[in-house]
Amino acid sequence: MCPNVLFQFKGVMFMELDKCLYGLPNIIDARQFDLEFLDRFFKIATDMEGVAKQGNCDLLHRKTMVQLFYEESTRTRASFAAAMIKLGGQIMFATENAKLFSSAAKGETLSDTIRVLCGYGPDVIVLRHNEDGAAEEAAMFSSVPIINAGTGKNQHPTQALLDIFTILKEVGHIDGVKIAMVGDLSNGRTVRSNSYLLGKFKGVEIDFVSPKCSMMGNDVKEYLGRHCVKFQESTDLREVAPHVDVIYQTRTQKERGSDFSRDDHSLGYFTVDKEILDLMKKDAIIMHPLPRVDEIDKEVDSDPRAAYFRQASNGLYARMALLKMILTPRA
Amino acid sequence: MCPNVLFQFKGVMFMELDKCLYGLPNIIDARQFDLEFLDRFFKIATDMEGVAKQGNCDLLHRKTMVQLFYEESTRTRASFAAAMIKLGGQIMFATENAKLFSSAAKGETLSDTIRVLCGYGPDVIVLRHNEDGAAEEAAMFSSVPIINAGTGKNQHPTQALLDIFTILKEVGHIDGVKIAMVGDLSNGRTVRSNSYLLGKFKGVEIDFVSPKCSMMGNDVKEYLGRHCVKFQESTDLREVAPHVDVIYQTRTQKERGSDFSRDDHSLGYFTVDKEILDLMKKDAIIMHPLPRVDEIDKEVDSDPRAAYFRQASNGLYARMALLKMILTPRA
Amino acid sequence: MCPNVLFQFKGVMFMELDKCLYGLPNIIDARQFDLEFLDRFFKIATDMEGVAKQGNCDLLHRKTMVQLFYEESTRTRASFAAAMIKLGGQIMFATENAKLFSSAAKGETLSDTIRVLCGYGPDVIVLRHNEDGAAEEAAMFSSVPIINAGTGKNQHPTQALLDIFTILKEVGHIDGVKIAMVGDLSNGRTVRSNSYLLGKFKGVEIDFVSPKCSMMGNDVKEYLGRHCVKFQESTDLREVAPHVDVIYQTRTQKERGSDFSRDDHSLGYFTVDKEILDLMKKDAIIMHPLPRVDEIDKEVDSDPRAAYFRQASNGLYARMALLKMILTPRA
Repeated sequence: MCPNVLFQFKGVMFMELDKCLYGLPNIIDARQFDLEFLDRFFKIATDMEGVAKQGNCDLLHRKTMVQLFYEESTRTRASFAAAMIKLGGQIMFATENAKLFSSAAKGETLSDTIRVLCGYGPDVIVLRHNEDGAAEEAAMFSSVPIINAGTGKNQHPTQALLDIFTILKEVGHIDGVKIAMVGDLSNGRTVRSNSYLLGKFKGVEIDFVSPKCSMMGNDVKEYLGRHCVKFQESTDLREVAPHVDVIYQTRTQKERGSDFSRDDHSLGYFTVDKEILDLMKKDAIIMHPLPRVDEIDKEVDSDPRAAYFRQASNGLYARMALLKMILTPRA
Repeated sequence: MCPNVLFQFKGVMFMELDKCLYGLPNIIDARQFDLEFLDRFFKIATDMEGVAKQGNCDLLHRKTMVQLFYEESTRTRASFAAAMIKLGGQIMFATENAKLFSSAAKGETLSDTIRVLCGYGPDVIVLRHNEDGAAEEAAMFSSVPIINAGTGKNQHPTQALLDIFTILKEVGHIDGVKIAMVGDLSNGRTVRSNSYLLGKFKGVEIDFVSPKCSMMGNDVKEYLGRHCVKFQESTDLREVAPHVDVIYQTRTQKERGSDFSRDDHSLGYFTVDKEILDLMKKDAIIMHPLPRVDEIDKEVDSDPRAAYFRQASNGLYARMALLKMILTPRA
Repeated sequence: MCPNVLFQFKGVMFMELDKCLYGLPNIIDARQFDLEFLDRFFKIATDMEGVAKQGNCDLLHRKTMVQLFYEESTRTRASFAAAMIKLGGQIMFATENAKLFSSAAKGETLSDTIRVLCGYGPDVIVLRHNEDGAAEEAAMFSSVPIINAGTGKNQHPTQALLDIFTILKEVGHIDGVKIAMVGDLSNGRTVRSNSYLLGKFKGVEIDFVSPKCSMMGNDVKEYLGRHCVKFQESTDLREVAPHVDVIYQTRTQKERGSDFSRDDHSLGYFTVDKEILDLMKKDAIIMHPLPRVDEIDKEVDSDPRAAYFRQASNGLYARMALLKMILTPRA
């Protein structure tokens, strides 16, 4: 076991983080997973695709989920709900915008909300929150596992898991993969979470392609340095596209203050379009966490290398796998 | 088979429409149903009243519904949920106001949202949207059936189906029925959808009663002309009330820009009140898609001819019937 | 049977109230319960704690709940949902903010909404509403039981039931209990409902502790006088704390126009903090309906006398008990 694993619970390794202790199989931070966990996760997620397509099963019969969302979401909330229901479980309570419509509007702290909800006996709480560290805080006060469904601008660990599961399925391997992360890199939590997770693998090479006003944060670059991941920075996707196995495109996070024009080519070239398609390798893929606005042209959708809708479906299988790993005793 | 039927799928006839192709038993447009479909629908909806009153059944066990609502709704959303649950199915995911709280706020197109949701494996998507044509667009990109639960100001086909089911139950026949459609006719999607559906029957006569500022659209009147439906226009319900079997009252659609005063009798007479009750035939009925504001006086509620709450209950039976027709193999 | 009981239905006594008639086991008003009902409720709620901890059961299989909330809520809505699901029932339809997102926005009356929802065949409707009297109005038009989940500034009967259940569990008795109700007393519906319910018991003594601008209403004080409950009023919790078995703290209801500074000690002393803890009896408890803002210091949480999170969990057991009493035939 790595020296910095705090403990192992039901097959989930918990790494040492400085902010809080974990006494439960919480999913908090993309850095917490080791390769043994990831290997098991990939196997179960692959099984889950079969389960999802055969129809529902009863694995989580009588298990209940609370969805506590302080930020809007379609796909994350829907895919967790679908995952729970496909496995025979139930959504006990879901709030789409806890900030506006719940006791948070009356000034309640997250820790109080978590303690109260735990008293109602759910089996797992799925949390989305606008503040960094919210999942750690929730985990400190929760008597049931917390799954981080996106917090602040830093972490979205279940997205990272479905993303590398997609790379494995589509490219065939993660070790040695060459990936371009493109767009609004300073504000996108998916590219940060993915970088943390890719740092676990060997021989990964990352090209960060962004305007200078939204480059990947130094903390992530330092993390990659410590984990021997080669990375380069660029402002022109056309230079990078011919060499990579994966183009991971992202949306401009206007709700986090980002704003730059893709049409202003003095900033660089960040749109996936016909020109980029023509430059890409024949067996490379295009990923996107979605929602997309205009950063991938519609005409790209019909190209077989456009993997983003398949990636979204992998979100269902990945979340089914996580729920199975967290909520059922290890066989 | 009529020459303009594109194809038949699980007993649902799909008529030729110019906007899109249908590969699934979608419910998109009140014009798509033929008399054979309607006859089958009426029989199943009648059965469903019995099923609903006996308690739940397991017909749709393990089937799941997504409710994607870009506009607010109480009764349509609740009745689809009730229909699904009464038949043993489940709501996988529901959003009350997708425009505000989902990825639409981040600029995602409807077609992307539909493709992602389909990847989560629902059996049917119920869509309400503020734009005309949204259901057609959704159907083009969906791998599961789409049910139009109200789009733009044009279509509300499941409301039209429950409305003519109500006429059949209450009046005893649809051929030859005399119906007054009253109120804000230019903006109400129910009166438009109903007109389309009534155009399938023989000998129907329609009186459109509205202020001059909100008359029924020419497109509907042309459609009725082509289908040999007699119609007249009026501004005074008192002249029409004595002759009709059904008064179909509607609400002023303030959220679509309509505004006229019912008290300004220079515009006409559009309120169903005691005066109108006294003019009506003894076996006529008053319908309303609800919600009602002030266009039917409260004192009318206790009259046995007030059919609008019975009509709302028929909404449950109609939607149960549609779900059965779409989601179960034809016996 | 007491002379002012209107009727008994499935073991629930309905007392004479002047506003409306009850034909169903509605939970409308904290005054409606007699001691026989309360005794049965306490026994069932105690059983329900065991049921909740063992996992779900099938007692309410095929039963459905509508949650019609015109005001935001986390804990009341979540605990009713949890109670229904723990007992094997289902949520048919829930709306988080009916005022904004439902047909109420189009001007529909509560009575119309209730009549329509009843047509969809739920087994019970849980209502939260901003107006006093809303639950009585709903009950008049409903064909299924209504549970008042908080209306106006007057009534929150299920909170009152869980609160006295908490006193019974924690203190061991309700007769003779000495309780301080603290904070924004003129606007808090829990302290009003609790006062009504405590008036049923013998030897209860209440200290109302509030700033002069938010004293308990005269109607409640007159009710207590008629029911021989001793009460006093104070502006300083430090004087009261040493003598009471229960400190029932409440939040300033800013959404109802209340605003006073706890730091302005010319108004009095209303915060539960270390100073108050040191004054309290060793076996006294601190309750709070939650959410809390700053009226109980965080440092109080770790004291064993801090009963408010246990009280929240009792909300689950109390609501399970009520659903069992309303929805199952009496054994």
